[in-house]
Amino acid sequence: MNFSSKLLENAVNEFSKLPGVGQKTALRLVLHLLNQPDQIVTDFSNSLTKLKSGIRFCSNCNNISDHPICEICAGIKRDRTLVCVVEDTRDVMAIENTNQYQGVYHVLGGLISPMDGIGPSDLHIEKLIDRVKSGEIQEVILALSATMEGDTTIFYLYKKLKEFQVPISTIARGIAFGGELEYVDEITLGRSIVTRVPYENSFIK
Amino acid sequence: MNFSSKLLENAVNEFSKLPGVGQKTALRLVLHLLNQPDQIVTDFSNSLTKLKSGIRFCSNCNNISDHPICEICAGIKRDRTLVCVVEDTRDVMAIENTNQYQGVYHVLGGLISPMDGIGPSDLHIEKLIDRVKSGEIQEVILALSATMEGDTTIFYLYKKLKEFQVPISTIARGIAFGGELEYVDEITLGRSIVTRVPYENSFIK
Repeated sequence: MNFSSKLLENAVNEFSKLPGVGQKTALRLVLHLLNQPDQIVTDFSNSLTKLKSGIRFCSNCNNISDHPICEICAGIKRDRTLVCVVEDTRDVMAIENTNQYQGVYHVLGGLISPMDGIGPSDLHIEKLIDRVKSGEIQEVILALSATMEGDTTIFYLYKKLKEFQVPISTIARGIAFGGELEYVDEITLGRSIVTRVPYENSFIK
Repeated sequence: MNFSSKLLENAVNEFSKLPGVGQKTALRLVLHLLNQPDQIVTDFSNSLTKLKSGIRFCSNCNNISDHPICEICAGIKRDRTLVCVVEDTRDVMAIENTNQYQGVYHVLGGLISPMDGIGPSDLHIEKLIDRVKSGEIQEVILALSATMEGDTTIFYLYKKLKEFQVPISTIARGIAFGGELEYVDEITLGRSIVTRVPYENSFIK
């Protein structure tokens, strides 16, 4: 692109480093900000620098938090014997939104992915093992994505955790609510038949 | 969404004010930036504040520029008797990329749109009239979008400029190169038949 201004080009280049943002989208976003009052641009810019400098991670579960211990770990109604292992804070938010889970979390900060150079030591796995070892935890739920990386991580965690004799479960996989059978892929449908559940267990309490 | 951190929530809210960015996308972008080194976030944030404080608009054509007169208006090879009227700097970039135009530009800064409360006085129209009035310009090309707002603006500019006896043209509308007839909408196809051009004029020189 032929930019008429070096400052504009810099800003567009910075925006186009974001995932899923190309040069055209970046230009559209930058021109939008340029048309806004100074205060809005300053707020935008400050929110990022403050986030980066002020953000903390819960010393217990590694979830993003403004305090040393996050609100969930500090919550009085939470069941600390049940821990749900997730990839990142987005998954915590997704599960919290269901209002179906009253335990605590453990955020790994990623999944094992040799292709991207991410090994077990890059994730918060040792910390999880320490938590389980301490004897406080009575069940570990592995709520990871149903992808190659998710399955690899589940397998690794299972091998590491099974010696502690604590029940380890994974979240159920199957057809989604509202999903029509004919559009479901063969692997999901096949597995959902093999792992069928008694009808009386299929209701949400 | 249930955010575990106020700082995170602020940053996500700022991002989701951008056009076409919802809360989920905003969260993805913010978490991406959070995983980057401090320097990258600082660069990102600085590029915006510098842009907003340092940006200039060409005093001749209103295009975004780092100098009082933009590179196009100052260019020695440019034909200053030919002016192309466009909506914003993106259109200047798009036309420059074609390498088919050697004249100068006039950036309106928007289109007349009563629905959005944008009238002629909100755009750089007086300045265009002054440029035409000065007698320097020998042709005005109106290169505005083929939308309701574009057509309204073209009609307004035509009425304002015709008294100066300078030729006014609009860019050609018709089917795009590589476009298949059967997928073209009726209005475009109908117009492109009515405004057909002699075959020998249809080549790009």
